[in-house]
This record gives sequence, C-alpha cells and structure tokens, in this order.
Amino acid sequence: MQEPMQAYLDRLASNSPTPGGGSVAALVGALGAALGSMVANFTVGKEKFAAVEADVQRLLAGCEAAREELSALVQADMAEYGKVSAAYGMPRKTDEEKAARTAAIQQALKDAAQVPLKAVAACHRVLALNRELVDKGNPNLISDAGVSVALALAALECAALNVEINLSYIEDDTHNSEKRAALNPLLGSAALIREEVWDKVKQKMAQ
Amino acid sequence: MQEPMQAYLDRLASNSPTPGGGSVAALVGALGAALGSMVANFTVGKEKFAAVEADVQRLLAGCEAAREELSALVQADMAEYGKVSAAYGMPRKTDEEKAARTAAIQQALKDAAQVPLKAVAACHRVLALNRELVDKGNPNLISDAGVSVALALAALECAALNVEINLSYIEDDTHNSEKRAALNPLLGSAALIREEVWDKVKQKMAQ
Repeated sequence: MQEPMQAYLDRLASNSPTPGGGSVAALVGALGAALGSMVANFTVGKEKFAAVEADVQRLLAGCEAAREELSALVQADMAEYGKVSAAYGMPRKTDEEKAARTAAIQQALKDAAQVPLKAVAACHRVLALNRELVDKGNPNLISDAGVSVALALAALECAALNVEINLSYIEDDTHNSEKRAALNPLLGSAALIREEVWDKVKQKMAQ
Repeated sequence: MQEPMQAYLDRLASNSPTPGGGSVAALVGALGAALGSMVANFTVGKEKFAAVEADVQRLLAGCEAAREELSALVQADMAEYGKVSAAYGMPRKTDEEKAARTAAIQQALKDAAQVPLKAVAACHRVLALNRELVDKGNPNLISDAGVSVALALAALECAALNVEINLSYIEDDTHNSEKRAALNPLLGSAALIREEVWDKVKQKMAQ
C-alpha cells in the first residue's frame, strides 16, 4: 500500500496480469471503511456527542479493523492471482505434467477465491457499522456516511463477482456450493442495508 | 496522485478536512475507468479481435480520457473544499465582515459543486463505454467489465450526493435548479446502463 495511487491506476489500466478486479474491489472496500472511520473521528471526543461516545468508539474500532483487513486483501489478491498465473504456466507435455498442472491450477483457484470471499465479509461489516453510524455520527458528515455505504456495497458486489468467476473455473461442486451458500445471504442483506442507510442519508440531507 | 495509497487512506479516515467523499468518489470513478482500459488493453492488437480493433481502440481512448479527468478531480475536490473551509474561517465581527464572509462561502460552494458535477459526467461516459466494451472486449476479462460498471455507477451516485450536499448550503434557487436539471437525467440513465451491462456480464459468466 506504499505504491503511489497513480502507479496503481496505471498498472490497473495496463495489460499486466495484476492488479485486477479483485484487488480493486478490496481497495474500494477499504476506501468505504475509511469514510466510516472519518465520520466516527469527527464525532468522538466532542461534548455534543458525549451520549454516544462509547458506541462511536466501538464503531470506529470496527471500521478501522475492516479497513486494515481490506487493505491487506488489496495485496493478497495480487499475490494469489500471481500463483494462478504461475500454475497456468506449468509444463503440459506428458500426462504426468498435465495432471500436476491441472491439480496446481485447481488448488491455486481455490486459494485465490478465499481473498474476495474475505473481502465480501469485511465489506458487509462496514455496511452493518454504517447502519449505526448514520444515526450516531456527526450529522455534518451525513453525505460521507452515504458514500461509505455506497462504496462498501459496490465493493462487496465486485468481490462477489470475483468469487463467482473463480468458481466458474473450479471443478468441485461441493466446494463451489459451500462458497455460494456463504456468499448469497451476505449479498442479499448488504443490498438491503445499503438501501436503508442511503434513504436515511437522503432524508437527513433534505431536513 | 503521487501520494501512496496508504497515506491517502489514513488521511481519509482521520479528522482532517480533506480528502472527503467527493475526492473518493472521483478516485473510485478513476479506478472504474482504469478497469475499462484494462479490458480494452487485453483486446487490442490481438488477431482474434481484429474485427473490432478500431472500435476497441476508440473505447480505450475514451476510458483513458475519463481516467485522466477523474484523477485530476481527486485533487481538485480537495483544493476546492479547502477554499470552502477557508471562507468559513473568515472574520465575522462587523456587518461588512459578515457580508463578505457569506458571499465568499456562497461562491466557494458554487465552485466546489462543479467538481463532483464533472465527476458525474465522466463516470457516465465510463458507463456508456462499457456498454460497448462488454460485447467487444476480450471475454476472458468479462468480470473486470462488471467491476468497471459497478464502480463507475457507485462513484457517479457518490459524486451526485456530494453535489446535493453542496447545493443544500447554496442559497440560489436558480443555480440549484440548473445543477439538478443537469444531474437527474444522468443519474437515471446511469443506473439503467449499470443494470444492463451487469446482467450481460452475469449471463456471459454463466455460459
């Protein structure tokens, strides 16, 4: 994460294999989490919001933990995708080589699918934290709470799309069913939380 | 844009006045545009896609132009918001000072509203470009086209929310009506394009 934003954007736009959509999804999730932290940081320690101080401290800790995890996933996605590319590059002249290559690809794809799955879970936590922050956070930052949930949902949906594209190459129905069973409830509830918080943001802005 | 991602995230999460939601919206738009460029860059120059070479070159140029504009808006939002903060900090002891401060705040808010408005337009271009890219781009990158549209729409909606929060402080109904008239059609059509492209991505992934 010490890479300048411009360099990351340039690599992303280029035809280099990494970063790709999974890494960007985690980055956008981290940006959403950071905005939740910003709302909390403009609330804590202020006389005016003393009644919710303990709650907002807890929400801040939650946003910061999610941000840290999602920032690590930005790099982890590139590392795992690099391993998938390496497995595809293995020799495939003999039957033994072919079998070893296929096994390595399948294992690398399973490992790689874990990264966006973790990103989905972390983005979901950001959404849930915003459900409280939108009521307890400093109202001067109401639009930032809106941006936080919108980015967290988009990041979650993009991470889920990356899980799906990985699963589409994995020939293990039991594995894939398990992952989809973990994913689908989070996708549904995330969209509902986003709608609820976004509507509340709009209402508060109209007051 | 030479700032490391970690430093930008840290400042975003902190209680420093910038960056805020408007700057992040432009950054996420730039990330969406970069993914469009990535899809195009994995398509151009390949024998297999020779029939659409000229089209994809045009789409690539469009994505790169949008990325450049959105990257510039990441910084411009921070600069304009700094001017709004400075205007709020002006002295307000005498009636003359109060009038000068109010006028300065109103002008700074109008200037600041231009930045997310430009971001909305640029994100809308990214969405429109993806409408073609999803059919003409290298199908191996289909999930990246999906991430590109999802991020472009989220960025557009977040930028529009930042226009709205600015307008809510601007006491000039004619100005505000003009800006809302420019904004609303883009918001509606953007959501439709996102849905259309996202559905196509899901269909192609299921094949």
